Amino acid sequence: MLLSGGLDSSTALAIAKGTGFACYALSFDYGQRHLAELDAARAVAAAIGVVRHEVVRFDLRTFGGSALTADVAVPKDRDPTEMAEGIPVTYVPARNTIFLSFALAWAETLGAGDMYMGVNALDYSGYPDCRPEYIEAFERMANLATKAGVEGRQRLTIHTPLMRMTKAEIAEKAIELEVPLALTWSCYEPQPNGLSCGRCDSCLLRRRGFADAGYEDPLRYAD
Amino acid sequence: MLLSGGLDSSTALAIAKGTGFACYALSFDYGQRHLAELDAARAVAAAIGVVRHEVVRFDLRTFGGSALTADVAVPKDRDPTEMAEGIPVTYVPARNTIFLSFALAWAETLGAGDMYMGVNALDYSGYPDCRPEYIEAFERMANLATKAGVEGRQRLTIHTPLMRMTKAEIAEKAIELEVPLALTWSCYEPQPNGLSCGRCDSCLLRRRGFADAGYEDPLRYAD
Repeated sequence: MLLSGGLDSSTALAIAKGTGFACYALSFDYGQRHLAELDAARAVAAAIGVVRHEVVRFDLRTFGGSALTADVAVPKDRDPTEMAEGIPVTYVPARNTIFLSFALAWAETLGAGDMYMGVNALDYSGYPDCRPEYIEAFERMANLATKAGVEGRQRLTIHTPLMRMTKAEIAEKAIELEVPLALTWSCYEPQPNGLSCGRCDSCLLRRRGFADAGYEDPLRYAD
Repeated sequence: MLLSGGLDSSTALAIAKGTGFACYALSFDYGQRHLAELDAARAVAAAIGVVRHEVVRFDLRTFGGSALTADVAVPKDRDPTEMAEGIPVTYVPARNTIFLSFALAWAETLGAGDMYMGVNALDYSGYPDCRPEYIEAFERMANLATKAGVEGRQRLTIHTPLMRMTKAEIAEKAIELEVPLALTWSCYEPQPNGLSCGRCDSCLLRRRGFADAGYEDPLRYAD
């Protein structure tokens, strides 16, 4: 289970848990500009209940190329049409591929055949590695990469239960499953006072989701 | 270019360089039991000449599951038939997938369309993630994962020039391209005196390769 501590991955964890899986959560300290999401991931993992939560550390700033790992401004106040028009500077090259690769390594040592991930193709802020065709290609590759795959013992499935849900539907599902929403974190640019900025793509998508669903978001926003 | 500092990746680097590429070499400090191969990678990169050499650090011991990252004995004195019969304990779960994912991230930030890797399907010690069908599946996934791929600007190709060569042919190619063989490192279990053990799968394959090719291996072996 990839767990960033955001709304989507926390809801995906609640879905996996509700399906009856014993969950192993994996987060990454990869040189992102703030660690608020890791604190959120730890709190969410503890609240929902996982067998184990691991944080893998590496530094993607070595390569740069993203507003989330380099000194590039995070875009603010974009409208949904603008977000849908191409890949934003917050895209981190190959990030999901790296994350899924580590999850694959852990799944193989655990003997797990099911991976969960909270990616979403509708309100996805334009990232190429959140599309269903990408996930399918990763799954196919993963089944050729591993000992269990080669020996035909186990087929690995990547579950993406939020893939075709709107942000409003995700907010509804999170409420239904009692996801600890106040513990989650979505903002790309936390404010000095600890509030979410309210204006980055991630905040805007989340706020619009809750507004469309008619629920109140327990997070506090600066703007 | 993935560079472990072994015979294969060093030869693949010499091939890429000979083809005219400006080379960027990538190595990993992943919790392997010895760092002799990283020293070798640095020395080989400097001797052959690369634009940049990076070492990415993370700890695969978090997951365990391999004799190369956990406290499990490295097998010794196996004959080639035995090596061909299944996947040995030195297999590190999803290692090549993780390595290639980082290389993909770097390639995307560099705007590079060509990746080189020294994998080999003949004398490959039985690893699932060294087979051509695996590499093809990774390449297909990679072209769906990236900004350049989605925008149709650039196709990424993974070159595996050693894929169908025997170890003897690789040794010959290394000699022909003047690979600094004395700087390379292949042993899974370096001896306290700094010599290669001579008895792990990797040493055995290398020694047999040089013997079959009729060349002397400049490395010194304990046994």
